[in-house]
Amino acid sequence: MMKPIIALYHDLKDEHKEKLQEMAPNYSVKVFHEVSEYDLDAVEIILGWNNDWDASILEKMPHLKWIQKETAGMNAIDESVRQSDKLLLSSMSGIHADSISQSVFAFILSYYRGFYQALRDQRDSKWNQEYYADLKQANERVLLIHGTGALSKQMAKVAQVFEMTVYGVNTNGRDVELFDKTVSSDQADSLIEEADIVINTMPLTNDTRDLFDAKYFDLMKEDAIFINVGRGESVVEEDLIDALEESKIAGAYLDVTRVEPLPEESELWQAPNLVITPHSSGAVEHFRDAVFGVFAENLEQYLEDGTLARNQYNYSKDY
Amino acid sequence: MMKPIIALYHDLKDEHKEKLQEMAPNYSVKVFHEVSEYDLDAVEIILGWNNDWDASILEKMPHLKWIQKETAGMNAIDESVRQSDKLLLSSMSGIHADSISQSVFAFILSYYRGFYQALRDQRDSKWNQEYYADLKQANERVLLIHGTGALSKQMAKVAQVFEMTVYGVNTNGRDVELFDKTVSSDQADSLIEEADIVINTMPLTNDTRDLFDAKYFDLMKEDAIFINVGRGESVVEEDLIDALEESKIAGAYLDVTRVEPLPEESELWQAPNLVITPHSSGAVEHFRDAVFGVFAENLEQYLEDGTLARNQYNYSKDY
Repeated sequence: MMKPIIALYHDLKDEHKEKLQEMAPNYSVKVFHEVSEYDLDAVEIILGWNNDWDASILEKMPHLKWIQKETAGMNAIDESVRQSDKLLLSSMSGIHADSISQSVFAFILSYYRGFYQALRDQRDSKWNQEYYADLKQANERVLLIHGTGALSKQMAKVAQVFEMTVYGVNTNGRDVELFDKTVSSDQADSLIEEADIVINTMPLTNDTRDLFDAKYFDLMKEDAIFINVGRGESVVEEDLIDALEESKIAGAYLDVTRVEPLPEESELWQAPNLVITPHSSGAVEHFRDAVFGVFAENLEQYLEDGTLARNQYNYSKDY
Repeated sequence: MMKPIIALYHDLKDEHKEKLQEMAPNYSVKVFHEVSEYDLDAVEIILGWNNDWDASILEKMPHLKWIQKETAGMNAIDESVRQSDKLLLSSMSGIHADSISQSVFAFILSYYRGFYQALRDQRDSKWNQEYYADLKQANERVLLIHGTGALSKQMAKVAQVFEMTVYGVNTNGRDVELFDKTVSSDQADSLIEEADIVINTMPLTNDTRDLFDAKYFDLMKEDAIFINVGRGESVVEEDLIDALEESKIAGAYLDVTRVEPLPEESELWQAPNLVITPHSSGAVEHFRDAVFGVFAENLEQYLEDGTLARNQYNYSKDY
């Protein structure tokens, strides 16, 4: 009888494939393009996913038991697949937590310490101390994070070393370690008014589409800054440009935009006090190594008792 | 008989002066320009210093017992005054630790997360993901700090949250909390070769003048970066420009330069992969409040037992 297959949608390093084969001697570890139509029947585990696949894939792989995605979002998987109670699903949530949080603090610290002004002055060969008295420290600033998952927790951890206060918004307002206070989104107004920094980390849902609009920016303090490392569609970009131009908020950082790549003619490029990175905040050095690490950790437990060590997806919670 | 005087070289907020008067009811708290020539005789404590004063000031203030400087460096005080064993001297060392360390990490994180490239692309309205694969995280990078005082310790503390390794160089290689390893300066070569980031925090002495020269940059890794928040005279600027132009090191951040303000014609302004801030890394928001805090803490102990709680200067150690 054919060995069950661990199918890698994208290849891994040889040493990592060998390690998987050692861990699971009763399985065949194969790159997906090496799996014939006939072999699909033997696929039990997939690392990776093709966003064009729909529920019919389950008919072709009737023995599929576990899908380990290589990204954080699960919505690219067809809803009927996500609903299945015969399948284990897991994400790479958290794998980008270090890189995104470091990108976010690169912006926060550069903003408070006057680097954007200094870079402009440097281009003009100008030693300009005029803004010296405006420089701030991060200490005691209030950080309000939409989302309290792995990335947000990592940001809260970094914020603590800078002695900041960290508030979180999540679906039901449940307490989360490292957060000084958490509220549900319908209770967020008073925290928005208090925040020095607002960060969006949320996936796109009906609740988060167009969440950051003129009304939201009006609630924010005039010296507060806004950061989006979630999804572009959560921000009404015209309203953000207005808020920056009218100094309703002091600055912003967007790593994601509604249309990507952001077209050359977009007015965002020239908006005042806005920094844009090209959806790169989450770029992970040695990404395949990190993917292997999470997968190997889950595989070890899966082989032991059929469960997963981390990042298991739950349809009813949608994360 | 006249009350002894606490003389403030620069004024403090009224509420802070009132607080000092409450703490020390047997003293007069006066701003220095209110102190007449005749009253100098009664001055026992000075907060602040005039860099033009020499040892003759001691003759005018024969009852002076304690000088609390408002800056970190003590060398502006005449050596004969610093040598006196009848005087207590104390600095504001550490007061800039938060701001400087946040400026340093603004640069480190912005460098690793590709913000300097992104800012150039933004000026060209260009969504450029070409450098995506070059982005790095701070994690596991090796930080080598010249100096292990209050500022360096704060940087080590921040580095820990990013899971970095921290080495220190000090006069005798003594162990210091938060540092993974410390060596004396004559033992530093192997650490320089290993470092991803070199930071200078040192005051100017014979040992630190011109320390960072072609020979030093040659020891550094090609993908390492150099940061100077100490004194400009510690860096041979022509050698730094050469090292950057010849890609012997990957980048640098200077907050201090040999000549300040840095003249418009300096070649530093245009050196590749160099960021310059105008000696602003240590700018402290609410600076006078911070000065008051350190002084009040020392005054409390001085009144109790004649000693100081923190930052006491020791001539033989020169810090």
